[in-house]
Amino acid sequence: MLGEMLESVRKTGPLVHNITNYVTANDCANILLACGASPIMADEEEEAEEISALCRATNINLGTLNRRSIPAMLKAGKAAAALGHPVLLDPVGAGASQLRTETAGRLLEEIPFSIVRANMSEIRALAQGQGESRGVDACAEDRVSRENLPQALDFIRSFAKKIGAVVSVSGEIDIISDGERAFCVYNGRPEMSAVTGTGCMLSAMTGAYAGANPGKLLEAAAAAVCAMGVCGELAFARMGPLDGNAGYKNYIIDAVYNLNAETLERRAKIELW
Amino acid sequence: MLGEMLESVRKTGPLVHNITNYVTANDCANILLACGASPIMADEEEEAEEISALCRATNINLGTLNRRSIPAMLKAGKAAAALGHPVLLDPVGAGASQLRTETAGRLLEEIPFSIVRANMSEIRALAQGQGESRGVDACAEDRVSRENLPQALDFIRSFAKKIGAVVSVSGEIDIISDGERAFCVYNGRPEMSAVTGTGCMLSAMTGAYAGANPGKLLEAAAAAVCAMGVCGELAFARMGPLDGNAGYKNYIIDAVYNLNAETLERRAKIELW
Amino acid sequence: MLGEMLESVRKTGPLVHNITNYVTANDCANILLACGASPIMADEEEEAEEISALCRATNINLGTLNRRSIPAMLKAGKAAAALGHPVLLDPVGAGASQLRTETAGRLLEEIPFSIVRANMSEIRALAQGQGESRGVDACAEDRVSRENLPQALDFIRSFAKKIGAVVSVSGEIDIISDGERAFCVYNGRPEMSAVTGTGCMLSAMTGAYAGANPGKLLEAAAAAVCAMGVCGELAFARMGPLDGNAGYKNYIIDAVYNLNAETLERRAKIELW
Repeated sequence: MLGEMLESVRKTGPLVHNITNYVTANDCANILLACGASPIMADEEEEAEEISALCRATNINLGTLNRRSIPAMLKAGKAAAALGHPVLLDPVGAGASQLRTETAGRLLEEIPFSIVRANMSEIRALAQGQGESRGVDACAEDRVSRENLPQALDFIRSFAKKIGAVVSVSGEIDIISDGERAFCVYNGRPEMSAVTGTGCMLSAMTGAYAGANPGKLLEAAAAAVCAMGVCGELAFARMGPLDGNAGYKNYIIDAVYNLNAETLERRAKIELW
Repeated sequence: MLGEMLESVRKTGPLVHNITNYVTANDCANILLACGASPIMADEEEEAEEISALCRATNINLGTLNRRSIPAMLKAGKAAAALGHPVLLDPVGAGASQLRTETAGRLLEEIPFSIVRANMSEIRALAQGQGESRGVDACAEDRVSRENLPQALDFIRSFAKKIGAVVSVSGEIDIISDGERAFCVYNGRPEMSAVTGTGCMLSAMTGAYAGANPGKLLEAAAAAVCAMGVCGELAFARMGPLDGNAGYKNYIIDAVYNLNAETLERRAKIELW
Repeated sequence: MLGEMLESVRKTGPLVHNITNYVTANDCANILLACGASPIMADEEEEAEEISALCRATNINLGTLNRRSIPAMLKAGKAAAALGHPVLLDPVGAGASQLRTETAGRLLEEIPFSIVRANMSEIRALAQGQGESRGVDACAEDRVSRENLPQALDFIRSFAKKIGAVVSVSGEIDIISDGERAFCVYNGRPEMSAVTGTGCMLSAMTGAYAGANPGKLLEAAAAAVCAMGVCGELAFARMGPLDGNAGYKNYIIDAVYNLNAETLERRAKIELW
């Protein structure tokens, strides 16, 4: 299943429309190219619908949210959804400010998202319409471990059912659920959190996987999570004693560039719950 | 000729004003520094004229076009042109949305550009006032090959004559024409299209070459194209089995940093048509 | 002293709010993570106070100044100062345009900054309410050398006293003063100026050091300057013959990631004047 998802990205080269932040836009564009897709970043309201219509998936990210781009998000998201394209939300920093929590809530109400990709603190903020968040990272008390996994799974499953979308939560253990089925993924490295934008990059790549596999959104989202985690591991293995988070970032994107179906299948640690 | 263009950038260190997109701004700044120039990125209308006047060239890029920065583009472009500085347009995504096509058209009408640097699909969109484009990349049917080179040359030459600017078109074969003479450049690697922003970087570097060689715009633009292509080749030769597009990007900028006149002259594959 | 400052960043992991430019935002975020802090980039007025309140320090950078973000700067800066958090100004390009010089002046009037981090040309522009600047780099005539060091120290000391903040000036010799005491730092490499954003990165890191050591701002700012300079040297030692400014940038961030108190203490070249 996972390898098939990857192959389909490489074969069809989906164009992904990103309305995203200026901190990680370059890395998101390069990781899209690395996995076989093509990026377009465009956040002007006036062209939002046209650009989204050209694409196979739309990725909305609240990283450096500003009022000016919210109308573009709404137009792009609705236009893409109307055409049956997967639309993904990455509610960066939901819970960190009222503007972010409310904007995420409003987008969720007005756009029929296919996928929401976030950390657990952001998902809690969405679920409660408020929340507490340590900036753009997950709070310690929201960590998913073997111990609280059943509760976390229940929570994500029911939130996914409630919003009618695939929910992909990143953390020590990743959870991906469509409200019925749920996958747990155990790949990745803790050092990935020392690279800014690994979450944003995963969201962009999830957009590509969804765009190339629109009939299998749960599997596509899970495959993107596995790909990112496996590449985090492969990149870590490449680190020398002088390397740090800058080298690590490059190695992660390079690993995505070189990843093939066979390696993804072999290294993925995924369970269906 | 080519080496002289390069030396003049290194000797005079031209400051280049960039009104550009937030996806590739960092790479454009670093490639300007790599070739011996200095970048300044500034897109606020209020200071556009002042900043452009400080600089030796102005580079306008529509990558993440938004309404807010169009007045800054107009002011900066006109101020620079009035001072006799080279002004360059990179109409990213012209043809992909009405906003982009129309904005590029309006800029071309109101600013006496010295150089337009784009891919063939974007040039066609400008020439026709509309067009079809696969996002920010060229369409397959717009590929320039040995077979259709004569027609492509005619088209670019006459478009350059019509707009009274040097036109620099990137592709498998690059074409640079001032409406009379035309150069074809055969350097570069197909893998460069897997790095986001190689086009933007070339535009920025073309701005530097033009700013340092204002009396020889055609040669300057051609030399920048050769430099970028040669560096794409040198960088590719440096790739190891684990490298991907992130490593490749760094190697390209590094190669520009280390490029000298002798290597450029020796490796350039350029023909006058 | 220096090692203690560094350890305190690694121990407390301060969250730093950055209102910064889109050219170097990614590198600033990664260098904050590298030194043990966490970044949040947010420039929307509506959430500025909330975000700054979540953080331990606020870093305001005029790199790609636009009118829209000035109200956010004012709100974030005032809110942070009211909470007793260190607030830092990096007046990029002050002197290069009236908008930048005036905005820097207005921010200095309305926000009780803890630290101003800039090059000498920018500081002169602030001190005179105007100035001349070669874009975003210091002018040659503003270079601090052994010869003019006493005058430069007097100037910086009195400017620091006048504005009631620590002033951290980067150059061949760095000067850091709180109006009474002053440090000179002799670390760093001239090649660092070929990497875009080394100044912005230092400002961000100074924010982290200040946030983790709020009672010792002069020492914190000096330690950040030493850390950046030492890492510039360590990164330079790692350069191979094919490396250029892109590799150098990665190596600098990687060196910050791997820097420990012992190395910082041993390699720092700092004098109290």
